[in-house]
Amino acid sequence: MSTFSDFEPPVFNNLTSAIRALAMDAVEKAKSGHPGAPLGMAEIAEVLWNHHLHHNPGNPAWPNRDRFVLSNGHGSMLIYALLHLTGYDLSIEDLKQFRQLHSRTPGHPEHGYTPGVETTTGPLGQGITNAVGMALAEKLLANEFNRPNHEIVDHHTYAFLGDGCLMEGVSHEACSLAGTWGLGKLIAFWDDNGISIDGHVEGWFTDDTPGRFEAYGWQVIRNINGHDPEAIHKALDMAKADKNRPSLLCCRTRIGMGSPNKAGTHDVHGAPLGDAEIAAARPHIGWNFPPFEIPREVYEVWDAKTKGAQWESEWQRKFDHYAAAHPALAAEFKRRMAGDLPADWAAQVQEVLTKTNDKAETVATRKASQIAIEAYAPRLPEMLGGSADLTGSNLTNWSGSKSVSREGKGNYIHYGVREFGMAAIMNGIALHGGFIPYGGTFLVFSDYLRNGLRMSALMKQRVIYVLTHDSIGLGEDGPTHQPVEHVASMRLIPNLDVWRPCDSFETAAAWGAALTRQGDNSGPAVLALSRQNLPFVKRDAAVQANVARGGYVLSDAANPRAVIIATGSEVDLALKAQAQLAEAGVAVRVVSMPCVDVFERQDQAWRDSVLPRGVVRVAVEAGVTTGWYKYVGLEGAVVGLDRFGESAPAGQLFKEFGFTVDNVVKTVQSVL
Amino acid sequence: MSTFSDFEPPVFNNLTSAIRALAMDAVEKAKSGHPGAPLGMAEIAEVLWNHHLHHNPGNPAWPNRDRFVLSNGHGSMLIYALLHLTGYDLSIEDLKQFRQLHSRTPGHPEHGYTPGVETTTGPLGQGITNAVGMALAEKLLANEFNRPNHEIVDHHTYAFLGDGCLMEGVSHEACSLAGTWGLGKLIAFWDDNGISIDGHVEGWFTDDTPGRFEAYGWQVIRNINGHDPEAIHKALDMAKADKNRPSLLCCRTRIGMGSPNKAGTHDVHGAPLGDAEIAAARPHIGWNFPPFEIPREVYEVWDAKTKGAQWESEWQRKFDHYAAAHPALAAEFKRRMAGDLPADWAAQVQEVLTKTNDKAETVATRKASQIAIEAYAPRLPEMLGGSADLTGSNLTNWSGSKSVSREGKGNYIHYGVREFGMAAIMNGIALHGGFIPYGGTFLVFSDYLRNGLRMSALMKQRVIYVLTHDSIGLGEDGPTHQPVEHVASMRLIPNLDVWRPCDSFETAAAWGAALTRQGDNSGPAVLALSRQNLPFVKRDAAVQANVARGGYVLSDAANPRAVIIATGSEVDLALKAQAQLAEAGVAVRVVSMPCVDVFERQDQAWRDSVLPRGVVRVAVEAGVTTGWYKYVGLEGAVVGLDRFGESAPAGQLFKEFGFTVDNVVKTVQSVL
Repeated sequence: MSTFSDFEPPVFNNLTSAIRALAMDAVEKAKSGHPGAPLGMAEIAEVLWNHHLHHNPGNPAWPNRDRFVLSNGHGSMLIYALLHLTGYDLSIEDLKQFRQLHSRTPGHPEHGYTPGVETTTGPLGQGITNAVGMALAEKLLANEFNRPNHEIVDHHTYAFLGDGCLMEGVSHEACSLAGTWGLGKLIAFWDDNGISIDGHVEGWFTDDTPGRFEAYGWQVIRNINGHDPEAIHKALDMAKADKNRPSLLCCRTRIGMGSPNKAGTHDVHGAPLGDAEIAAARPHIGWNFPPFEIPREVYEVWDAKTKGAQWESEWQRKFDHYAAAHPALAAEFKRRMAGDLPADWAAQVQEVLTKTNDKAETVATRKASQIAIEAYAPRLPEMLGGSADLTGSNLTNWSGSKSVSREGKGNYIHYGVREFGMAAIMNGIALHGGFIPYGGTFLVFSDYLRNGLRMSALMKQRVIYVLTHDSIGLGEDGPTHQPVEHVASMRLIPNLDVWRPCDSFETAAAWGAALTRQGDNSGPAVLALSRQNLPFVKRDAAVQANVARGGYVLSDAANPRAVIIATGSEVDLALKAQAQLAEAGVAVRVVSMPCVDVFERQDQAWRDSVLPRGVVRVAVEAGVTTGWYKYVGLEGAVVGLDRFGESAPAGQLFKEFGFTVDNVVKTVQSVL
Repeated sequence: MSTFSDFEPPVFNNLTSAIRALAMDAVEKAKSGHPGAPLGMAEIAEVLWNHHLHHNPGNPAWPNRDRFVLSNGHGSMLIYALLHLTGYDLSIEDLKQFRQLHSRTPGHPEHGYTPGVETTTGPLGQGITNAVGMALAEKLLANEFNRPNHEIVDHHTYAFLGDGCLMEGVSHEACSLAGTWGLGKLIAFWDDNGISIDGHVEGWFTDDTPGRFEAYGWQVIRNINGHDPEAIHKALDMAKADKNRPSLLCCRTRIGMGSPNKAGTHDVHGAPLGDAEIAAARPHIGWNFPPFEIPREVYEVWDAKTKGAQWESEWQRKFDHYAAAHPALAAEFKRRMAGDLPADWAAQVQEVLTKTNDKAETVATRKASQIAIEAYAPRLPEMLGGSADLTGSNLTNWSGSKSVSREGKGNYIHYGVREFGMAAIMNGIALHGGFIPYGGTFLVFSDYLRNGLRMSALMKQRVIYVLTHDSIGLGEDGPTHQPVEHVASMRLIPNLDVWRPCDSFETAAAWGAALTRQGDNSGPAVLALSRQNLPFVKRDAAVQANVARGGYVLSDAANPRAVIIATGSEVDLALKAQAQLAEAGVAVRVVSMPCVDVFERQDQAWRDSVLPRGVVRVAVEAGVTTGWYKYVGLEGAVVGLDRFGESAPAGQLFKEFGFTVDNVVKTVQSVL
């Protein structure tokens, strides 16, 4: 362990002091925020942003920009100061609105709110993991699109991270993979300040972090004085020189450097410095300007608009040559980076659906998903698949799958047993652009990746989660592997579409909808898929079209006395119960509800047409019941499972827990 | 990387072959399961269990037994074979029932189903993390209870783990802490077989694992031939000799060793070998007995009942001397290890509640929680607190808190920024016995620990999760830090009690209920607590008593025309709406529902008395609405938040999203 009290203050200058002043003043004005990291990392940020980072403040969407990720997102004023100073569309008025309602400077950096913020960070460990995904995307795209003398994809990914990120487990998953993949253009700066919220970290963080990263196959540059610009320069040059390994720059810093009395303490981590300390800090850092005032000459040095425009136009020239030599590739690159689907996409989806219907296969929906991937993937080369070490179970691969190699080739990622890492890497891939990532694990282990999934939803990224073995139908592996609450609990995440298809047709439709999420409607999707075979259900063309509504009448009856709503494997049960009830003279409608979220987005007329008011309802799903009362109300009933499962063959479990035709019939009769 | 094809087969003998045969045959009979690990780890298991493990098959609850954890829980037949062979109450008939309904040999080892299974494993990485918790519990108990010449707490914790456990992020969190804490009695065996489900791990797992663990401060013993009993012996002796560092034994093995044609391939990982291969394996391993037949002489060597009983009786003698010298300590140790609360516990809780009511404090419920801890902890020295680096925010510490040190002293754990590690370590601590662990983080980061929480619930462990900053009331940190769906989604986990108290009294009652969960009703609790102040609500003695019912009438009206159900910070809103409606001549009842789960366990009469049939209901909670329709039905309404939050001061957010008295009033009027 280094000691953190042995720093001489750096040679403060107006470039770094501008960052420090903006951070201090904005946090003070908001009366909340984290000044520690912006003050402690000002020199690192200045060197990187003024001398190494290739970006264009005038066009935050320039495809070949370097990506910058602030994994320690609580230090958000650092990135806001940098974006403002270098000339992004983020005014001093925006900075004054730090942490205020509907401002462009929210408490943590939020992708989509602020130009230049590449990803939403704050949940620790995920920023560095997103950065791994971005660097992988760059490497794969470069291999796919670059041609001799045409290096149109060629940029770095930089990440700042703190002790917290390094303690989080997801950093292990991501950084291990970054080493395996040899992501030479990934450069991470560890803000080694020895402080976390509970105080000096010696009591709970004693890792030999350099040794740990060497064990992952990284280039580790140790003992950088994070307040010495020359040392940071040199380390960055070394980092860039190693093309085959990601680099960790271990920068010893003093948290809150510039605060004369509070630097080096955890008081400075997450609270305003206070008027008195700020007043003392100004002369200490040689900054004699009032809050939110930056002298013109300081702006002039920071301004990256001119050089940024020049970098982009140089790249554009290269790209034009590339386009002349490889017009189809160039067009495809532009389409892919824009996130656009092929022009005739809707017709292509329809073609897949028609074929699926014609085939009428009775298969497990995980198998139906593989068949759907096989149909869609040749049409969408941006589909970048993978699994957290369950390929043969998730059936996430297809005949064109090629494993991603250290050389940066391939379209299928073996994430290893790293669910959370997979999710946050997929977010990074999607944010980088050029790919639609999808990845598989068992549905029950969505728990492990849950916050990554939430971040997909919060950032509205088109990331597809293939979650198989979706109920007690998993069978013998038992309750640790049997999802019971998971489908219901994921339905609660805003912006996320959770599909639980009942057969091969609904599975293909779910894949089509997930791939098609775009624009305002963009966001992630979950496909919850069965281990066991589910019978194909016949639908006429009109009913087929209705699947896209999320909930629809699958099998009607004249003047139904009840509606059975079912999803996934329980739809078959509903249809059989309908038949049995019909024999007993009870007319019942069966509604299949593969995606509650999409159904909720339909207009009231549609919802009323599917679930007519005044007709009693019974929901059937092999999972917890609570959510279904929204549809069945106090008068209806739910056939579900409000307890953990058991280890046994699936057929026995369905019987044991009441998922039988008789029980559904009995339940319907009980509410009539 | 070592190569895995360079093994000569070991010298098979009847002891290891008994394990291999039982595993092959049971998996074959079940037609499902994982033979790879039991076959590959047979020599390691034989050496550990026959020559090092101190346990007593006749009493799986012997407090000073060594703990054994199979972190690679899919290899469950390994532990079932060991338990059966050494003489636990697990018959050959039980083994024949492997993976069958209601058997004692479920697909993964389930604590509570099988005598001798210390923890439920299967979700990878959590077993080794539980083991870290067990080893920490041992160290803390030893320091608290041992006296010179009275070492009544002195045992090892052993864990088997596979590549999957090592890839999972939680293994980083746990093993880092194990190094920091210097858990010298924790000994882990890495089954380094180079295979995971997707195949040979070289493509996705290239860590220098020994280097990684050295970076954590472990003793790492490299290059052990995992099929050479002598090498395993020696390594175990080295591991035990190091009292200050946990040890990782890197055992190169061949997965499925003993299967002549499938060993070393991933085919053997998770599927039955098949009749032909088993027929070939029998002569290969020199085992000429039919399935499920073990010769008497083999049983005799394995049998640990006699030596186990002797070990326990030696310990009992020591304990009796200890009890003679330190009777109060001995009684307390017995109480603590039995998980019993003090005899007058109910009265003590009542005393705390009465005082809390008398004080009538208006504080944030996170502060109320700290006040409650301050009241309960001196009465319950088994309370072992902590936080994932948010002590000052979670307010999980109290005046008697002493940070747990490497010397094994203290009652408060700085987990660092390691939420999942915290949860699974708490499970290990609870399973070990002697403690009631509680730990804090922000509610939104319950996502990170979700499967650990699920495992607390599945294993019915009394673990208390203090989850603060429970809504948009968090304010400026924004949507990454604002839970919206979390309270609702945790309510879906079976066996878990989720409390969202509305004031200091309900908070103290929630703590009392959580600490008191025992026996059939045992399980974890979540306390979802506010950042912001919540006004104290006056209750008479009868109403105070009703809080323990989970949902109760907080403020009634004669002939109410509607019921407002609210939780936490929204109860105040409900009361104010009630008053405003009363002025408008509309009588409304207010129900506080701090714990839906407990309310659900009340009898129908209670539930009907709180929520009378036929009276329309409105629920108010600053979170997603879906779950509340169970109580308001199709006719009622919910004031909630079905989108992500925003970064802004809390007061503005509540207004922005409709959590105002006017909106609640309007909503009630809309359903009348």
